Amino acid sequence: MAAAAPPPPPTPAPSAPTGLPDSDSTPVGHPLFTRIRLATPLDIPHIHKLIHQMAIFEKLTHLFTATESSLASTLFKSPPFQSFTIFLLEVSAHPFEKDSNLHSQSFTPIERIFNLDHTLIDPEAETFKSGINCDVVVAGFVLFFPNFSTFLGKPGFYVEDLFVRECYRRKGLGKLLLSAVASQAVKMEYGRVEWVVLDWNVNAIKFYEEMGANVLPEWRICRLTGPALEAYRDAI
Amino acid sequence: MAAAAPPPPPTPAPSAPTGLPDSDSTPVGHPLFTRIRLATPLDIPHIHKLIHQMAIFEKLTHLFTATESSLASTLFKSPPFQSFTIFLLEVSAHPFEKDSNLHSQSFTPIERIFNLDHTLIDPEAETFKSGINCDVVVAGFVLFFPNFSTFLGKPGFYVEDLFVRECYRRKGLGKLLLSAVASQAVKMEYGRVEWVVLDWNVNAIKFYEEMGANVLPEWRICRLTGPALEAYRDAI
Repeated sequence: MAAAAPPPPPTPAPSAPTGLPDSDSTPVGHPLFTRIRLATPLDIPHIHKLIHQMAIFEKLTHLFTATESSLASTLFKSPPFQSFTIFLLEVSAHPFEKDSNLHSQSFTPIERIFNLDHTLIDPEAETFKSGINCDVVVAGFVLFFPNFSTFLGKPGFYVEDLFVRECYRRKGLGKLLLSAVASQAVKMEYGRVEWVVLDWNVNAIKFYEEMGANVLPEWRICRLTGPALEAYRDAI
Repeated sequence: MAAAAPPPPPTPAPSAPTGLPDSDSTPVGHPLFTRIRLATPLDIPHIHKLIHQMAIFEKLTHLFTATESSLASTLFKSPPFQSFTIFLLEVSAHPFEKDSNLHSQSFTPIERIFNLDHTLIDPEAETFKSGINCDVVVAGFVLFFPNFSTFLGKPGFYVEDLFVRECYRRKGLGKLLLSAVASQAVKMEYGRVEWVVLDWNVNAIKFYEEMGANVLPEWRICRLTGPALEAYRDAI
C-alpha cells in the first residue's frame, strides 16, 4: 500500500470539463478529449509502464518488482468490480470513434472534453499509443478493488493506485478518475471509498478533502511482508 | 475500516498450543480444543452477533448498521480467498468429531489444543453454540479479503476484522487466527498481509510487531462515505 499509493494528485481543473459533446457543438480553445474505460489484458504493457513511472515518481523503484507476466497472472481473473479492477484514462486531440467493443454490461465508458489554454505536447505519445492508426494515448489509470465494512454490512471500494502521467497533470484528470470510482461505488450501493495518503502530502490531503473525503488521524497500517511473512509458511 | 478494525488483541498464550493430538495422547491440565474453519452462510447469525459485540467493545455501536440480511446478501458470493473470506474460531472442552463436510479443496481446518490453568466458564455458551448436540461454541472470527500491490505485481490479504470473545482472550487465540491468515497468504504466494491499528493502542502495536509486522508511521486513511459519497451519484 505504502509502495503504491496515489501520488500528489492534480489540482482541480482550471476549466471544468464539459459534458458529452452535442452532435452540433464545437469545443472552443484547445479541446482534450478524454475517455475512461475498463482496462483489458491487452493493456498490460501500458499498465506496467505506468506503474513503473509511478515508482520513479515516488522514488520507490527498489520496491518495484512487478512484471508484465506477474500482472497478467493476477489481474483480469474476475469480472469487473468483483476483484482487482482498472479504469484506464485515454486522451485524444480528436473525438473518440464509437467503439462498441468497449461497452460492457458492467460499465459504459465515460467521455469528457477538457478545454485547455494551450495545446499539450506529450513527449511519450508514441510509447503510450492506445490501439493502431489513431492518436489516442493512455494518460493514466486507477486500480481499485472491493473491501468490506462489517459494521455497515456491505462492501466498498479501496483505491490502491491513482496515477496520471506528468504532462496531463493539474487539469482535473485525477479528479475525474477518482470520481469515476466513487460514482461506480454509489451505483453499486457500496458504503465507502477508501485510499491512503502520506501525512506530509498537504496538497494531496487538501485535494482529497475538497472531494469530500475525511482523513482519519488515528489509524496506522500494519504490514507483514517479506521474510516476516514467509516465517508463517510452516507456522500452522 | 476505522469502524471495524481489530480490537486490542489477546496477549501471547501463557502456554503455547500443542499440535494435533496423537491418537493415544492425553492432554494435561484443562485442555481447550480449538478449530479454525471456513465460515459458511449457516454461520451468519453467529457472525452478526460477533460483529455486534465488536461494535460494543469499540464503543462504535452508532456505526453498526449491519443486519443478518445485509451480510447474507454480500458474503459468500465467491469461492474462499477470492473475495471476502471468514475464518471461524470454534472451541470445545472435548476433541472435535471428524467432520468431512468442513474439509474443502481450498482449506483444511486447523486444530490446536491449548492447555489452560483452569476450566473456562463461557457465560454465552448457549448463544454461540455451533451445531446441534455438541459442546462446540463459536469463540471468534477473522474477516479478510485480497488486496493488490501494483509494485509487487501480486495480491495480498487485508484483514478487516479480528475478534475473539472476551472469555477466550489472552490465551493466544487471536494470534492463532492471524497466523492462519498469514499462513494462507504464504501458501498462495501472496506478497503481504495488512491491517490497521489505532496509534494509541500500544498493546496491540506491541503484539503485532512481535508477530513480525511493521507499523507504517506516515500513511493515513482517506474515507469517502455517507452524503459525501452519495454526491457522486450523478457526478459522472
